[in-house]
Amino acid sequence: MSKEITSREKDYSQWYNDLVIKGGLADYSAVRGCMVIKPYGYALWENMRDVLDKMFKDTGHVNAYFPLFVPKSLFEAEEKNAEGFAKECAVVTHYRLKTDPDNKGKLIVDPEAKLEEELVVRPTSEAIIWNTYKGWIQSYRDLPLLINQWANVVRWEMRTRLFLRTAEFLWQEGHTAHATKAEAVEEAEKMLHVYADFAENYMALPVIKGVKTPNERFAGAEDTYCIEALMQDGKALQAGTSHFLGQNFAKAFDVKFSDKTNKQDYVWATSWGVSTRLIGGLVMAHSDDDGLILPPKIAPLQVVIVPIFKGDEQKGVLDNTIHPLVTSLKALGIRVKYDDSDNARPGWKFAQYEMQGVPVRLAIGMRDLENGVVEIARRDTKEKQTIALNGIEWYIKTLLDEIQLHLYNKAKAFQQANITPANSWDEFVQLLDTKAGFISAHWDGTPETEEKIKELTKATIRCIPLNNPLESGHCILSVQPSSQRVLFARAY
Amino acid sequence: MSKEITSREKDYSQWYNDLVIKGGLADYSAVRGCMVIKPYGYALWENMRDVLDKMFKDTGHVNAYFPLFVPKSLFEAEEKNAEGFAKECAVVTHYRLKTDPDNKGKLIVDPEAKLEEELVVRPTSEAIIWNTYKGWIQSYRDLPLLINQWANVVRWEMRTRLFLRTAEFLWQEGHTAHATKAEAVEEAEKMLHVYADFAENYMALPVIKGVKTPNERFAGAEDTYCIEALMQDGKALQAGTSHFLGQNFAKAFDVKFSDKTNKQDYVWATSWGVSTRLIGGLVMAHSDDDGLILPPKIAPLQVVIVPIFKGDEQKGVLDNTIHPLVTSLKALGIRVKYDDSDNARPGWKFAQYEMQGVPVRLAIGMRDLENGVVEIARRDTKEKQTIALNGIEWYIKTLLDEIQLHLYNKAKAFQQANITPANSWDEFVQLLDTKAGFISAHWDGTPETEEKIKELTKATIRCIPLNNPLESGHCILSVQPSSQRVLFARAY
Repeated sequence: MSKEITSREKDYSQWYNDLVIKGGLADYSAVRGCMVIKPYGYALWENMRDVLDKMFKDTGHVNAYFPLFVPKSLFEAEEKNAEGFAKECAVVTHYRLKTDPDNKGKLIVDPEAKLEEELVVRPTSEAIIWNTYKGWIQSYRDLPLLINQWANVVRWEMRTRLFLRTAEFLWQEGHTAHATKAEAVEEAEKMLHVYADFAENYMALPVIKGVKTPNERFAGAEDTYCIEALMQDGKALQAGTSHFLGQNFAKAFDVKFSDKTNKQDYVWATSWGVSTRLIGGLVMAHSDDDGLILPPKIAPLQVVIVPIFKGDEQKGVLDNTIHPLVTSLKALGIRVKYDDSDNARPGWKFAQYEMQGVPVRLAIGMRDLENGVVEIARRDTKEKQTIALNGIEWYIKTLLDEIQLHLYNKAKAFQQANITPANSWDEFVQLLDTKAGFISAHWDGTPETEEKIKELTKATIRCIPLNNPLESGHCILSVQPSSQRVLFARAY
Repeated sequence: MSKEITSREKDYSQWYNDLVIKGGLADYSAVRGCMVIKPYGYALWENMRDVLDKMFKDTGHVNAYFPLFVPKSLFEAEEKNAEGFAKECAVVTHYRLKTDPDNKGKLIVDPEAKLEEELVVRPTSEAIIWNTYKGWIQSYRDLPLLINQWANVVRWEMRTRLFLRTAEFLWQEGHTAHATKAEAVEEAEKMLHVYADFAENYMALPVIKGVKTPNERFAGAEDTYCIEALMQDGKALQAGTSHFLGQNFAKAFDVKFSDKTNKQDYVWATSWGVSTRLIGGLVMAHSDDDGLILPPKIAPLQVVIVPIFKGDEQKGVLDNTIHPLVTSLKALGIRVKYDDSDNARPGWKFAQYEMQGVPVRLAIGMRDLENGVVEIARRDTKEKQTIALNGIEWYIKTLLDEIQLHLYNKAKAFQQANITPANSWDEFVQLLDTKAGFISAHWDGTPETEEKIKELTKATIRCIPLNNPLESGHCILSVQPSSQRVLFARAY
């Protein structure tokens, strides 16, 4: 099984695709740039979604649902946002098909069913939501409005990659409205911390929290906060963003409120989102050449039990032990599968579950049973141990926590080892080609220099870390004075 | 508050809209035929979705996600299905907007970004899913494939109504593949029973299970099973459908499997779905002229506690009792809100929560506290009682069950009282105009007669009930012989 996976060394990009496809997470579809999220991948997304959803609710947010379509006139209302997304919009122009008179059994777009106004398939929902908020907000009593939406969005990207960049993707988008600037900024920062908490404590994915440069901001934002993760190939991945939108959308959609003194002002806004792209980051952060490695907290399956037997009689004996074990593992909230199917050999099953990144595998044969033991294998370290069956439930529970922590620590050590200072242009360029990772370097603060560096090296400023220490220096490219280092990287 | 709701007697249709809008379930949007599902309505949908999702998983199904778009060539592959939906398809023809050269700040569709092949926004996903299944199914070992999808779909309906008929709606669609016809039929029937179970035991909505006539079948199905509910105005509402699709989609997409003897055959299929339309049915089945009445099992809020006090000191005293009560209600799994906001009087709050259909309301003032009692009001019967605070948690838990049962029994009695036999055309027509409800009548079994009855009366055959007793008679319209009665009604 595992031999079908291209190694990272040979072709990192193909390794990634192999993991996604052969690990059962997703599949290509007949629609350009769109993917099918397969049941195993969707179960992973459900686990991620459920954790995030609880975090959003615990911080006072509620869910709602807004239309898929944005009429063009609303879409263009906030000019920067519209400009930022115009080039990748799927546009609905007609509302009916009809039989092709020249070609029986085929359909054509009915030219008589042309929409008066074209509808944009939402690439993001600020426009439709702020147009709605206009009707919901009159007074300070209506604020804050703390709403999240789980939805599909479409961005017509030219080059797509499974999970990382697809024309359609699933995400959540929070859209909040506030009476003061300070409150909106606080909200944007709070949600950044929620994302970081989720990435680190559930995905075992260490991230750097920071602020984007104006060049890299979300179209229509005053400030874009982000969490940036590091992949095994040394490229960065933007894992989530939280935007302080100022009053831009409130002004574009004329959303005002009256405060306690009856004074009118525009409402302050934030938006924040993470998407199925996170799954791409998860795959690339932890996995190895034998397949996926998934953190226990969000793995669809945490434990698989493979019986080793010949014939129904042995199977029956094993069942007598394994069925109660499954029950007691489930009672501890552990997601466990007893794979007693007889259509594959144990070795094949082992490889299959390795490929799928199931954190813990148990194998039990007749001799194990006689000795009251079981073989337990960790997916992350590939370590195998023989452990007493008695009390194994708690051993497994602890082991899952240990694996979760180990994955995080390993990724954290990798991240720390791959934040490298560069103090000259030569050093910068050399680092990018030899070590990659985050490069911490001085930048003169101008969009021109940033753009130039990107042109020359494909490296972008990933972020200015939060609480970045001030340090005088000189821009690696322009040699102009600089007051702080920023983090550069090539990125997904 | 409640005086703002139009009464059912005055204008049933306006009453419904008032409940949906003023009850906070949904709002109109800027997109023709599309609605915004507001947080309260979405919380209701989440509760419904979670119960259904568990039911699907308990019956062996897994979730996945397929693309929003269906290339036209795939869409038209299953001809009947394509024909059935062609007239209501939103079609994406372009993938880019550009700045309008004649109108600064405005955007136009970029004519150079025309898609080679148009994309249909899914009205249902059989085509895209069966095109995918082709790659997933080779052998009997790959079967059955039991997949469900939670998604948005778009059907460009000309006349729309909040929840009941919207251009975009949320739904789930199960798509299963089987090795035998018998197994597929069994699946279609099983899911019908799941839907009926959900409607009756969670929505408190009694339904009739039946089969559609060929005229009313889903486009592309061999058989459509349905559950039909009755609204208070005597109109029927199709609340869910489950289709046995035969081998139609397998043939259209060439999906074959080899059985144990290596013989090739086309795969057998089912699909089944329920949507946010259910919320419309829920509203119309139980509510009254004062607002929504929601069944406790799926109500976003089950209990609201309104304190009656003057000043902070009294408030503090009440808090000391109410906070622990809230904690212990939550510990029992009860969704409770303590509305201690000071921006509205108790009477206003009472009306507000009545409007929103919160099943149980507690009101506690200082004197109640002194007497160790609380006033408890049921939304469904409007009964109020004074109950000892001590042990109130269990009283409430029991009361919620009682309300759930009462709503079902009331709706069931209404349904039973409104299934009326008609034995002649005159009787049939008179019943439709005076009593409505389901009319049980003989029909000659021809699509022509069915169509004629629909033309003359707007009544359709809602279903042929499962296990319908055979009975000789004569068709109410054609007077031809008939072997069984079927259920007619005017419907949403």
